[in-house]
Amino acid sequence: METQAADDGTPLDASVTSVASDPPASIGGWDVRSADPDYRAAVLDLLGALAYGELSAFERLAEDAKFAPGLVDKAALAKMASNEYQHYQQLHDRLVEVGADPTAVMTPFVEPLEAFHRMTAPSDWLEGLVKAYVGDAIATDFYREVAVRLDDDTRDLVLSVSSDTGHAQFAVDRIRQAIEADPRVGGRLALWGRRLMGEALSQSQRVVAERDALSNLLVGGADLQGFDLVEVGKMFNRITEAHTRRMAALGLAS
Amino acid sequence: METQAADDGTPLDASVTSVASDPPASIGGWDVRSADPDYRAAVLDLLGALAYGELSAFERLAEDAKFAPGLVDKAALAKMASNEYQHYQQLHDRLVEVGADPTAVMTPFVEPLEAFHRMTAPSDWLEGLVKAYVGDAIATDFYREVAVRLDDDTRDLVLSVSSDTGHAQFAVDRIRQAIEADPRVGGRLALWGRRLMGEALSQSQRVVAERDALSNLLVGGADLQGFDLVEVGKMFNRITEAHTRRMAALGLAS
Repeated sequence: METQAADDGTPLDASVTSVASDPPASIGGWDVRSADPDYRAAVLDLLGALAYGELSAFERLAEDAKFAPGLVDKAALAKMASNEYQHYQQLHDRLVEVGADPTAVMTPFVEPLEAFHRMTAPSDWLEGLVKAYVGDAIATDFYREVAVRLDDDTRDLVLSVSSDTGHAQFAVDRIRQAIEADPRVGGRLALWGRRLMGEALSQSQRVVAERDALSNLLVGGADLQGFDLVEVGKMFNRITEAHTRRMAALGLAS
Repeated sequence: METQAADDGTPLDASVTSVASDPPASIGGWDVRSADPDYRAAVLDLLGALAYGELSAFERLAEDAKFAPGLVDKAALAKMASNEYQHYQQLHDRLVEVGADPTAVMTPFVEPLEAFHRMTAPSDWLEGLVKAYVGDAIATDFYREVAVRLDDDTRDLVLSVSSDTGHAQFAVDRIRQAIEADPRVGGRLALWGRRLMGEALSQSQRVVAERDALSNLLVGGADLQGFDLVEVGKMFNRITEAHTRRMAALGLAS
């Protein structure tokens, strides 16, 4: 991947991510772990949230494609949307494979995600790009952090669907061009980035509060190694720091 | 594919198509034929129209997905949209392969297609389904009719991207269910189907009038075997008849 230098000269590519420095050892495969009903419920919650997130990302990217300033940008957004759909399909198929009903598993996450989208409807092409970039990156960071603590099969799936769909570099390039052409755009988009992060945190807290299985997974209730409240705090710090670095890479103050 | 019986008892599946009864013999590969600049221009026009049509179909299906009554329907529409995008990608890559600029080749068809979509904006989920089904089928019929007269390479590509993306049976099932639940829906959708066919013909005539290369291809100006005005008339008859049969299969008078 092409890398770009940040203002301080540090090489910085578009897909800055936060990854826990010491991934814990494998906890075994799905076949073994899923015998624990709490663990199973937690993983289904996680996959349901991820699946609806992909379907929702498909919709938002397709919507943004309508506002693309030209055919090249329109096709680029359509491609990303199509990739998100492929990820959805992988998650859907896995849910069926483990005997879950994809619709039932996704349903609890529809309203929180739609609330996030209602609160953060982009007013133009650039706000849409920043939202796609920032939103996707925060979600990817979160899933990668959680993935390393899951059984091997679930981890591989989550990492696979969290892979970069080409969003990042595309958005960074377009946003930087727009700020170069009109520096005032930077101030507006910086505010927008803060609002996105705030709403994302607010809806995540709501989901964690409402979904016992998922919060047990996060705070170690499902017997996961060393994933206690201190670790959760550290994880959110890493995600916030990665967000700050990404905003800086765009030339935006977070 | 599952087949369903029409009112008169004829077995009828959702993907009724009109295919010329006597496909003409091969006219050779692209390498040979494209030496003729008129032929090359005509094929680029055709691929440009088809490529923008796929991108536009992606957008419309993604838009319709927003109005889906549930997650299963939403995901079904997203899958079809994603398939349309894959077709677009194939056409885009082929245009690049033969040294054409995809954007330049697609641009003449943006306005006619957008005009069609402006004139036929569905007001609800069912109108969107009928539009996707009818619009896709008419376009497929047209391209399959033309394809058999093209060089082997272009023909294979056109037939490949005109393959059913799963639209047909899905739309037929949903529309029939809706008419069964409320027969008055049938009258409204029958009117809608006529309007769609009328607008499609009107925009097609506009394109043919404005694009010399494409109309030469249709009336044999590019030295294609036996594709004269009489044949063109017959082709439009076959397409209209297939449309009538499809509407009947839906339980709608055309």
